[in-house]
Parts: sequence; C-alpha cells; structure tokens
Amino acid sequence: MSQQSIPDLIAKKRSGGEHTRAELEQLIGGYTRGEVPDYQVSAWLMAVFLNGMGEQETADLTLVMAESGDQMDLSALENTVDKHSTGGVGDKTSLVLTPMLAALGLTVAKMSGRGLAHTGGTIDKLESFPGWNPELPEDRFIAQARDIGLALVGQSKDLAPADGKLYALRDVTATVESLPLIASSIMSKKIASGAQTIVLDVKSGAGAFMKTLDDSRALARAMVDIGQRAGRNVRAVLTDMDTPLGHMAGNSLEVQEAIATLKGEGPEDLTELCVTLAAEVLLAGGWETDEAQARERAAATLKDGSALAKLEAFVSAQGGDGRLVQTPEGLDVAPGRAEVTAPQAGYIVKLDALSVGRAVLALGGGRERKGEPIDVGVGVETVKKPGEQVAAGDVVYRLYHRDGRGLERAQELLQAGIQISAEQPEEHGLILGRVTGEQTAG
Amino acid sequence: MSQQSIPDLIAKKRSGGEHTRAELEQLIGGYTRGEVPDYQVSAWLMAVFLNGMGEQETADLTLVMAESGDQMDLSALENTVDKHSTGGVGDKTSLVLTPMLAALGLTVAKMSGRGLAHTGGTIDKLESFPGWNPELPEDRFIAQARDIGLALVGQSKDLAPADGKLYALRDVTATVESLPLIASSIMSKKIASGAQTIVLDVKSGAGAFMKTLDDSRALARAMVDIGQRAGRNVRAVLTDMDTPLGHMAGNSLEVQEAIATLKGEGPEDLTELCVTLAAEVLLAGGWETDEAQARERAAATLKDGSALAKLEAFVSAQGGDGRLVQTPEGLDVAPGRAEVTAPQAGYIVKLDALSVGRAVLALGGGRERKGEPIDVGVGVETVKKPGEQVAAGDVVYRLYHRDGRGLERAQELLQAGIQISAEQPEEHGLILGRVTGEQTAG
Repeated sequence: MSQQSIPDLIAKKRSGGEHTRAELEQLIGGYTRGEVPDYQVSAWLMAVFLNGMGEQETADLTLVMAESGDQMDLSALENTVDKHSTGGVGDKTSLVLTPMLAALGLTVAKMSGRGLAHTGGTIDKLESFPGWNPELPEDRFIAQARDIGLALVGQSKDLAPADGKLYALRDVTATVESLPLIASSIMSKKIASGAQTIVLDVKSGAGAFMKTLDDSRALARAMVDIGQRAGRNVRAVLTDMDTPLGHMAGNSLEVQEAIATLKGEGPEDLTELCVTLAAEVLLAGGWETDEAQARERAAATLKDGSALAKLEAFVSAQGGDGRLVQTPEGLDVAPGRAEVTAPQAGYIVKLDALSVGRAVLALGGGRERKGEPIDVGVGVETVKKPGEQVAAGDVVYRLYHRDGRGLERAQELLQAGIQISAEQPEEHGLILGRVTGEQTAG
Repeated sequence: MSQQSIPDLIAKKRSGGEHTRAELEQLIGGYTRGEVPDYQVSAWLMAVFLNGMGEQETADLTLVMAESGDQMDLSALENTVDKHSTGGVGDKTSLVLTPMLAALGLTVAKMSGRGLAHTGGTIDKLESFPGWNPELPEDRFIAQARDIGLALVGQSKDLAPADGKLYALRDVTATVESLPLIASSIMSKKIASGAQTIVLDVKSGAGAFMKTLDDSRALARAMVDIGQRAGRNVRAVLTDMDTPLGHMAGNSLEVQEAIATLKGEGPEDLTELCVTLAAEVLLAGGWETDEAQARERAAATLKDGSALAKLEAFVSAQGGDGRLVQTPEGLDVAPGRAEVTAPQAGYIVKLDALSVGRAVLALGGGRERKGEPIDVGVGVETVKKPGEQVAAGDVVYRLYHRDGRGLERAQELLQAGIQISAEQPEEHGLILGRVTGEQTAG
C-alpha cells in the first residue's frame, strides 16, 4: 500500500475526512518513532479537535497508540479483569475493589501509577505498608496473579508511549479537551494492559476531568465503543466526583479506610461504589447476567472476609507487613492534628474535591513533580459531608499534619472550598449512570 | 499589559475568537524571534484555517508580519508606487508597466524576486541585458529612483521574515489555502516594501494560485482591505491566467516582447493589461479621477516613446547595455527551433499555462531550487491562442532550445496542455473585474 504525504493526511482531517488505520499508523506510529515532526502532528491535533473523529477511526487511533510500545502479555492467565478510574481526589476504590475481584475468583494483574499534583496513586497508597515492593519479575508477577488473583506493580513497561508523547503536545497546543483524543488516550493504555474485561469508573464534577454529566456520558460511550471494537468486554459507570469519596484523603488514611470497607465497616458511598463496580465486572465478563445477583455476590466478599484475606495475602506476597491489614492502626499516621470549621450555620452545599486534593499536596502527601518523595502519614478527613447541617464553628475537616508543614496553606484551601447555604441542597446519588455496550441506562 | 500564555492564545482562535494586535505580536512576533516553537504556531495555523480571521485581525496580523524584519524606507521619495502580481506564467508585465509608471512621473523603487519552479522572476528577465546589475547601494538606489523614476534591485533586505517562516510551516501542515493567511502573506511584504500606492494584479485560472474567479475576488477584497487599514492606497485588478500573457515565455524572449509592447507593437492582451494597471495606479493614488482619461495618459507613454526611453535609461543606470532596448534582436536567444502542432482540426479551447511554465523549466529557462543558474535564451512561443481555429498539423507552439536540452519533455508537456474542440469556445476578456476600496466593479 502506497503511503500518502503527511500534509495530505493532515489535509484529509482538515477537510473532515476519516482516516484509515494505515493512515493513523503512518502519522501517529511515525510520530512515536520520531519520523513525523511535532509541528505536523500539532496541526493534525487541532484539525481533530475542530472536526472530530468517527467511531471506527477513534478505535483505530487507540489501537495504533496501544501498539506503539510494550504490551502486557496476560495470555497465561484466565478471567483477567481491570478497572480504570478517570481520576479524582481521595479515590481509594482500587484498594477495596481489586481484593474483592480476586475474592470473586477473577484475576487482577496490572500496573498502577503514582500520584501527581492533586491526584493520588495506588502504588503510593500501598507503600503505606512497610516493605511492600512495587517491583516484581515478570514470572513472579504472573505466578502471583494466578495463585492469589491479585498482583499490582509500578510502571515498569513503556505502555502506549504514543499517548504520553501526544498528551505532552496537546497540553501546549490547546488540544486537550477533545473527546476522541481523551477516550483514545485512556483506552490505549487499558488495551496495552492486556485484561479481557474492563470496567471504567468515569468521574463527573468539580474534582474530575469531565465537569458535566453530559460530557462524562459522552466520554464513557466513546470508551466503551473503542473497547468493543478492540474485542474487549467493557462497561462504564458514571460516578459523582463533586465530593471526595469516603472521608479520608492521604495515603495511610485511605488504606485504613479501605481496610474498614473490606471489613464491611466502611463509608456508605465507598462501599456502594465498590459493590457497583465489582457487579459491573461480573456482568461485563458474562460471569453473571442478573444485576441483583451480581451485586449480592460482590457484597458477600465484604461480609465473609474473603476480600480482606485477599488483601492480606497480596500485601504479604509482595514483601509487605500483611499483619497490618488486621491492625491498621499500626500504619504510619502523622501525629499533628488541626481543624477547619464551618464559618456560618446552614447546610453544606458543596465541599470542593479539588481543594481537598490540593490540601493533601500542601501537607506533603503528594508530589508536584515525578520522583519526589511523599509523606504517607499526612492527610485530610472530611468530617461533615454535603447535605449535612452544621452550626458555625462545627468541625468540617480534620487535618493530619507533620510538625505543621503546609498546614496554613492547606487550611486556606479547604476553607475556600466550603459552600454553606441556608437551604437544604438537593441530594443526588453517587452512581449517576451506566454505559454498557448495547444500551445506556441511568 | 500582561501577556497570556501561548496555549491560551491558541485556545482563543480555536474557539473562534479574534486576536488583538498585541496578541498577534506575542504569537507571530515571538515565533519570528524564535521564542514560540513551531508546534504551537502550526496548531494555531490550523485553527485559523478552520475558523478564519476577522478583517481588522487580518490587517493586524499583516502589520505584525511587515514589522518582523527590515522595512524599505522610501520617505525620501515622492509619488512612490508599486505593483504586485499574484504570480503566473509568462508574466512580463513588470517589464512594461514599471517604465510606463516612470514615464507618468511616478516613482518605482522596489525589490524584485527571481523565478522558482514554473514561475519566472523579473530579476532573471532583466539579466538578459548583459551587464545589468541587480545590486545597488542604498544611496544610489534612492538617487536613481528620484532621477529616472525607476530602480529595481534583488532581495537584499530581509522583508517580512515572519512570512517566509510561516509559509514554510504552512507548506508542511496543510494550511496554505487560507484566505487571511494568503492575503496577509502577500500584503506584509508589500507594506514592508514602502510604497504609498499599490496596485494588485490578482490572477485567476489554471496557471494561477487562485483557480476560480470567486476565490480571486475574495483574495483581492481581503488585500485591498488590509492595505486601506494600513493607510496605503490600494486597488486590485482581477485578470485571466488561463492562458499565458502575450506569446512569449522565457527570459530574453519576454524582454523582446516587452520592448515591442513599449514601442506600441506588442500583443493586444499584454498591452491592454499594462494600460489597465497603469490607469489603476493613477486612479488609486488620486493622480486621476476619470478612468478614460487615466487610460489615455497611460497609453500615451507607449505611443510617444517615453516609456521605452525610461527602460533604456534604467537598464543603462544599472550597468546594462541600454542600446539593446533599441536593437532587442541582439539579446541572447537560443538557436534551436522545434514545434508542437495541433493533433486535430478544430478550435483551440485551452492552452494550459502551467504546462508552458513547466516546458520553459524543462528547457533550462527556470530553476528547481534557489541559486541554480538558468539559460536566459530558451523559451516557448505560443503561436496560436485560445479561440483560434487550427487544422491538424498547424504549429501551436514554437520552442527555442539549446542543443535539444529538455526538448522532448517540454514537447510532451505542451502537447498534453492543448485542448481542441469542434465547437468555438466562448470568449472572455483578460480583465475579469476590479476591486477598489469602496466598491467592486466587474
């Protein structure tokens, strides 16, 4: 097949045309290999931003990106499942969900990231267990996933390098907020990660990448469509990210809250989300067809202790002190305490999730740049949640700090994010909708 | 005034906003100075291509580009005039028009280009006069313009370097065919060239950059608007470029034809165009208000020999053999002759101008790359013009070649460009329309 010139390919998208997979391979594969210069790709990105992409075209772009670097080979494993969250603040879902999935007899074998800026990372949270090691040789990784059903490692492979390169270019050319580019970016890494069944937790609201429910639903639809065209079982759940999930933000604090949830004693919203996502995995992979039954099986892993046992086995297998799963009060929590109180009486309308993430960062619990060390012990506890009534001076947030580091800044951030009104706000649930391959509910 | 980030500026154009002059200076001035990288400018160019630019915005971009490098200082001269052609094949207009303008008492002091690919350049044509020198010190350039009314030099200054840099980027990012970008590109150089009164010869048709009359008219309007906003007197004439102007293409051959025209013995179409353009200059600058009178004054310079005398004085002043203006048969014309004949009887519908330009290039009369030497003596004579009736075997083109170099290729190109039909084609005039500041006629 003869190649077109790169300007011809740019002109095609500029004029509203749809690319073939071979064309996308020439352009984006070529860009990743350094054959196509960034100034041509940035013109193409702007044409995509303004003219959009078709569904098959978006799926083809995703596959080209997924094949641009290493790919996880999970072919030695059965019932491989994966969950992806579009990010957010205080999201300790993976810590609860992955042991639940293992307890359901499924296999989670994945790479996880570290936190950056105001978002946390699962690897950082797991390092709250002294000795826990995010590096495993490939044979041990596969063996552990087969034996326990759960193995998590850091980013040792170069999955979908095209995505990182494209994202950096989009960031400086005002082409980030494009639905096909966001969807293909996320899905390229998920597809390169190798799991057969994938459930997406698409956050919506102030603390999330997509600020409105319509945008979140469109993103979920695009990602489910890509997954299906790539031959994977994919479903998405749309969840509220206007408020941090559970009460805790910060690494050790989130691990403690996750353990409580795995004991059936966790916050209602976190428990509900984890049961919903686990049930969606069962439905997506065809292991259950009835929703109520799927939810019941998922919830049972919290009641019978099987999910908690999986977490303990997993932490121990990767060198961590698994006994801390039974005695989480032994995890490192910073000794300093401070509070942020309600400035007036009324109903809490909103607690800005972004402010909570930034407050944890200010306290030293996150990093501004890759590679910086973090303090796993600091964090923020959300004492009151939106919808609750408060008197002036009631404690809304409790801060866990180390020698006052970043405390003032964190308090300012949290204070600024509190909205109190005389009128009781309308309540809306945590689960805003679902997107399956065939139809959309919710 | 605080500066915005470059991604913010790109986002503004992406969202259909209009830039201020300060924003364009930051973006395009910054690009020219190497402060803004090409990958950001190419994303912006695509946003401009798809979202367009407003009239004031286009004028501001033009001024930013005009001020990006050297500017010709013609303030020591009076009645400065300039003509610009949007290019084309066999366009020897400047050779006729500039002496006419000098004979009208106006001042032409300009830099001219060399030919590239299938288009010729005035400097190359003037070098058909042995000894003629395209380099003049600035004081002599000004003095000669004041004394004779005509001084032409090669591209010694870096006029509007932003344009060259932007054009190179547009060429590889599929963003060439954008009206505001084309108009600002042309006008930035004209404005940096310093003349107060400018007439634009906008070509339309197969041999021109704009293929349709509507596109040409829109380009002319945009350029006239820019010129007016920049405080210059500007008019545009829309002319047909479906067929080469006059009969000759090639350097010495075109000079001979120009001299014949200056003697009042030139081809009708070339004479008509030069009289029209000279009259437009008189009207644009306010030296005449009546069109018929302007045309009469312009035509008189051909009848009374005053324009021819200006050419002779000009060639001599720059070191050339001015006597050749009186004896143009002494110019170097290649001795080889060959022909291309009509393949069948009928009316000539079309002679592709681009084919003629490429044939001259094949014979050695043009250059593929900057700096290559050319053979001023070779060329193509169009013996029959569109609308004429021919018998099979009639000579349509005569070729002037040097030892058969490129002859076969040139003959193939010319043959392929001939269209003959049994029906007589509709005739349309050379002058397709005019665009003035206030209204459009034509």
